[in-house]
Amino acid sequence: MRRPRVVAFGGGKGLSVSLRALRRLPADITAVVTVADDGGSSGRLRVDRGALPPGDLRQALAALADDQGAARLMQHRYEGTDSLSGHTVGNLMLLGLLEIHEDPVAALDEAGRMTRAHGRVLPMSTVPLRIEADIIDEHGRPGVVRGQHNVAVSRGTVTAVRLDPADPPVAAEVLDAVAHADVILFGPGSWYTSVLPHLLTPRLREAIAESRARRLLTLNLSEDTETAGLSLAGHLGAFAKYADGVTIDWVIADARAVGYPDPVESAAQSLGARLVLARVARDDGTPRHDPDALAAALRPLLETERESAATEFRRSAGE
Amino acid sequence: MRRPRVVAFGGGKGLSVSLRALRRLPADITAVVTVADDGGSSGRLRVDRGALPPGDLRQALAALADDQGAARLMQHRYEGTDSLSGHTVGNLMLLGLLEIHEDPVAALDEAGRMTRAHGRVLPMSTVPLRIEADIIDEHGRPGVVRGQHNVAVSRGTVTAVRLDPADPPVAAEVLDAVAHADVILFGPGSWYTSVLPHLLTPRLREAIAESRARRLLTLNLSEDTETAGLSLAGHLGAFAKYADGVTIDWVIADARAVGYPDPVESAAQSLGARLVLARVARDDGTPRHDPDALAAALRPLLETERESAATEFRRSAGE
Repeated sequence: MRRPRVVAFGGGKGLSVSLRALRRLPADITAVVTVADDGGSSGRLRVDRGALPPGDLRQALAALADDQGAARLMQHRYEGTDSLSGHTVGNLMLLGLLEIHEDPVAALDEAGRMTRAHGRVLPMSTVPLRIEADIIDEHGRPGVVRGQHNVAVSRGTVTAVRLDPADPPVAAEVLDAVAHADVILFGPGSWYTSVLPHLLTPRLREAIAESRARRLLTLNLSEDTETAGLSLAGHLGAFAKYADGVTIDWVIADARAVGYPDPVESAAQSLGARLVLARVARDDGTPRHDPDALAAALRPLLETERESAATEFRRSAGE
Repeated sequence: MRRPRVVAFGGGKGLSVSLRALRRLPADITAVVTVADDGGSSGRLRVDRGALPPGDLRQALAALADDQGAARLMQHRYEGTDSLSGHTVGNLMLLGLLEIHEDPVAALDEAGRMTRAHGRVLPMSTVPLRIEADIIDEHGRPGVVRGQHNVAVSRGTVTAVRLDPADPPVAAEVLDAVAHADVILFGPGSWYTSVLPHLLTPRLREAIAESRARRLLTLNLSEDTETAGLSLAGHLGAFAKYADGVTIDWVIADARAVGYPDPVESAAQSLGARLVLARVARDDGTPRHDPDALAAALRPLLETERESAATEFRRSAGE
């Protein structure tokens, strides 16, 4: 049986843990990565050199790299106080490849070849994106926050989120991967800045809605700053708000993080999904996913045939 | 018959052309590279971050790389006016590896693995070096010039050259390569700043003097700034001044660059060497070596047995 083709959407550490889980499974992996970062090293490269922000792409490559030495080099961050401080070697390597290759997909494929990536890493858009959010601040006043970094650290309540440009270009290779996917995977990750941007991109959302792939969504283990005040059911509600025709088949959540499952189960059902409760967090008490545990939860859901997956899941769950 | 073990000394473009020639031949190559650069990107990294200057090491790696994509990335130079401008991606990759691995030899071996280097690249010393020269300026006044960059662009006549520190540490791997070499190759290159520094390093000069390797020296095609006023015979004289027991077996020179061979032949003989005149320059009239032509000139001199090399050279020269 051929390996299922899996497209994983996201950015940052959340996507990395998905990719580390997926590479433990028989799967043909494509990562589609947000390019909206405007903080830190990526933000400086974006402003100083007009680059596609490389940080999230680098993290995805490091997660998929079979060449551990290359991954370690890419993740090395220069310390100190000079002008290099804060950059990672991988960000500067990707910057170089993006300058050499006009096509960012060619640059990423070359980076994948050099790191012997266990899969393909593609940018969500071929141009840098800017995230904007409407918020209600702690005094109840409405406002607009511009930029991924500012949204991620905002202490207000996000009421709406959008992209600039509103209809960004999407590489043909991304649309092709979505069209031929057997499984599409959302989350975990920073909800407004790493998970929802894919739905906010019209060409990508349409491709996802039209695809015949099974859709999985992995919930976070806890609130992060940008979703303070948003419950796990609320995360699904925010997803539904922008889903616009994108249904979900399975929502994977950590049993302990969910607590009483009823509200999460209801929210999952409103997306068309069944809820899968599993132990997917690390044992050490930190709110981070364990790649092995996440892989074990994903394994029965990656089967090529929808029916057999449901059957297998019910069997493994002892139903 | 096993491939001859060749140790090539040098730095910059001169060493690169030697390595590009050697990789066309059946040879087990080790490059031992100057680490005295203090100009440009290397100079900034040396001052800002205390790094072993990576530029010459990068050029040697690029010359030996079987991974052409990795070599192209390493040689890519950021343009523009921001703080990255002027750096090459490869210098920043080597900086990262030198920060990750405490042992610079381990860092270089990792870089060689990542670029699939056709041989090994080692630093001449494990610490950054400073070159100092005594000069007589254009008005006949004596003075001291400090730093490789300043020596390289100095318009005065160099009367003496030395290193700081005077007795720099040399990695065991370098001494081992010299001890087991079948062939040792000097030049071409910037004479005072890329070729002579190896003789100025006591531990390296002693290892070379004690080795049973055949010693080859490739002369430059023309004067460069730092050797203005120094003939090709004068280059050999400057080498002899610091040779201190290091004899040479064969001096390879371009027939056209030499013109009347008598003075060069005499200077070669005073080093114990025979002069080999060949066409080793490019056809396009630029004073640069052609790797194919240099390889053809080196081929008969790389034979494992000294006697057979002399015989073969005489036969191929039609003597």
